[in-house]
Amino acid sequence: MPDYPFLKGHGTENDFVLLPDHDGSVHGDLSPERVRALCDRRAGIGGDGVLRVVREGEQWFMDYRNSDGSLSEMCGNGIRVFARHLVDEGLVDGSQPFAVGTRDGVKVLRVDGELVTADMGTPRVLGESPVSVGPSTWTARHVDMGNPHAVTFVSSLDDAGPLLEAPVHDAAVYPHGVNVEFVVDRGERHVAMRVHERGSGETRSCGTGACAVMVAAALRDGLVAGDAPAGDTSYRVDVPGGTLTVTWTAANRVLLTGPAVIVARGVTDL
Amino acid sequence: MPDYPFLKGHGTENDFVLLPDHDGSVHGDLSPERVRALCDRRAGIGGDGVLRVVREGEQWFMDYRNSDGSLSEMCGNGIRVFARHLVDEGLVDGSQPFAVGTRDGVKVLRVDGELVTADMGTPRVLGESPVSVGPSTWTARHVDMGNPHAVTFVSSLDDAGPLLEAPVHDAAVYPHGVNVEFVVDRGERHVAMRVHERGSGETRSCGTGACAVMVAAALRDGLVAGDAPAGDTSYRVDVPGGTLTVTWTAANRVLLTGPAVIVARGVTDL
Repeated sequence: MPDYPFLKGHGTENDFVLLPDHDGSVHGDLSPERVRALCDRRAGIGGDGVLRVVREGEQWFMDYRNSDGSLSEMCGNGIRVFARHLVDEGLVDGSQPFAVGTRDGVKVLRVDGELVTADMGTPRVLGESPVSVGPSTWTARHVDMGNPHAVTFVSSLDDAGPLLEAPVHDAAVYPHGVNVEFVVDRGERHVAMRVHERGSGETRSCGTGACAVMVAAALRDGLVAGDAPAGDTSYRVDVPGGTLTVTWTAANRVLLTGPAVIVARGVTDL
Repeated sequence: MPDYPFLKGHGTENDFVLLPDHDGSVHGDLSPERVRALCDRRAGIGGDGVLRVVREGEQWFMDYRNSDGSLSEMCGNGIRVFARHLVDEGLVDGSQPFAVGTRDGVKVLRVDGELVTADMGTPRVLGESPVSVGPSTWTARHVDMGNPHAVTFVSSLDDAGPLLEAPVHDAAVYPHGVNVEFVVDRGERHVAMRVHERGSGETRSCGTGACAVMVAAALRDGLVAGDAPAGDTSYRVDVPGGTLTVTWTAANRVLLTGPAVIVARGVTDL
């Protein structure tokens, strides 16, 4: 394949290769082999996933692929980097919220200086069940953000150990596996987390994970009456790769806010 | 800093960020902070090191930095990627061998289609001493290729386990640490290796390590009379990231040959 354009960017160190392909003429149906080659951290450019940038009528569509080449519906940090690119290139009017299509439906994005906010939708709060790492077991809250999360509060982030394997969980509750978050308090409405993502292992950041953690923390802290907080409620959520802010609105939407940057652009023939 | 040009390339998955800076006006004295930012695999472009491309009189100079920002004299895979870039851009005449300056002196490179050969100089063959991983101990040959290597032949590459820590070695023999190679036979003049690099852990490839392994294998196989083989002698050396060929010449030089590619080029403001 001749040279084609790419960009690389990240949101709290969740990193992506972006492929501008506005009319679909560059890549058409992007092959899993090419996605894997691009995401390879030594033989390629390197990334947690690929964001193909396609126009769909009047709207932009984020064609998201995991680094293993598989399709994925949505990615909270990915769509924030995608939005940064659209505004950088003047492809959308960044002075007001704009819509981006994904396989999980249309998402609303807002860019405010260095920060990009994604409306991550309505959380589903489910029951509690145990998760274990080695000899340690904790009770975890099941929060579904489109994907399943098990959120557990621990006394120290070191308690989960090196997290080289997936924490043990109840297969009846999580038949397709689960992302597990370990959370400590850092202050009022301020927590820090580590995350083990199903299929990826421990990562530097997870957008839906930060949202699930905030939801579980707000519930624990007694800030929720009925389905949602009485007023918009924000938590700072520190992840290994940076800091995110999660807001749960009175209208029962979860907003994910944080930095998103493009660090390089060029051409590749991978 | 405004956008400046970069390239990314690799040799057997030993990967590098190249910074064209022919007259030194782009980067001057490249800071360790910028090197770390460029080599960061999630917040940056990602690489095992940076190769700044500088002209020095009539010759090109490889200003090599490790990913932690420190200076390094030489890198066998790095200089092969450097040579590929010079030929790609028409900065040297690739139809004949050419010289590249390094902090370890002038090296001679040759590009032949997909393969790039670096003259790695004369090996120093030293004594034997033990290396250990957990309960296992082997006898290792000390080969100095400008940096120290301990080469040990094992029955299976799995014998060394996950190699999460540096193998235990004799500090009197290796006062500054050592790169340790585990080697198995794959056929006649064909071996495969794993390497634990001091300061980096297990890596996908190590150019000087492949050279040290070939030297130890040729000695073991009785192919050396005096200081060097009677005639030029080649081994295929498989590394996790690909395949290298190492030739020990009758003139007592070691030549490292293998693929070297540029996979992307563009601009960054890191």
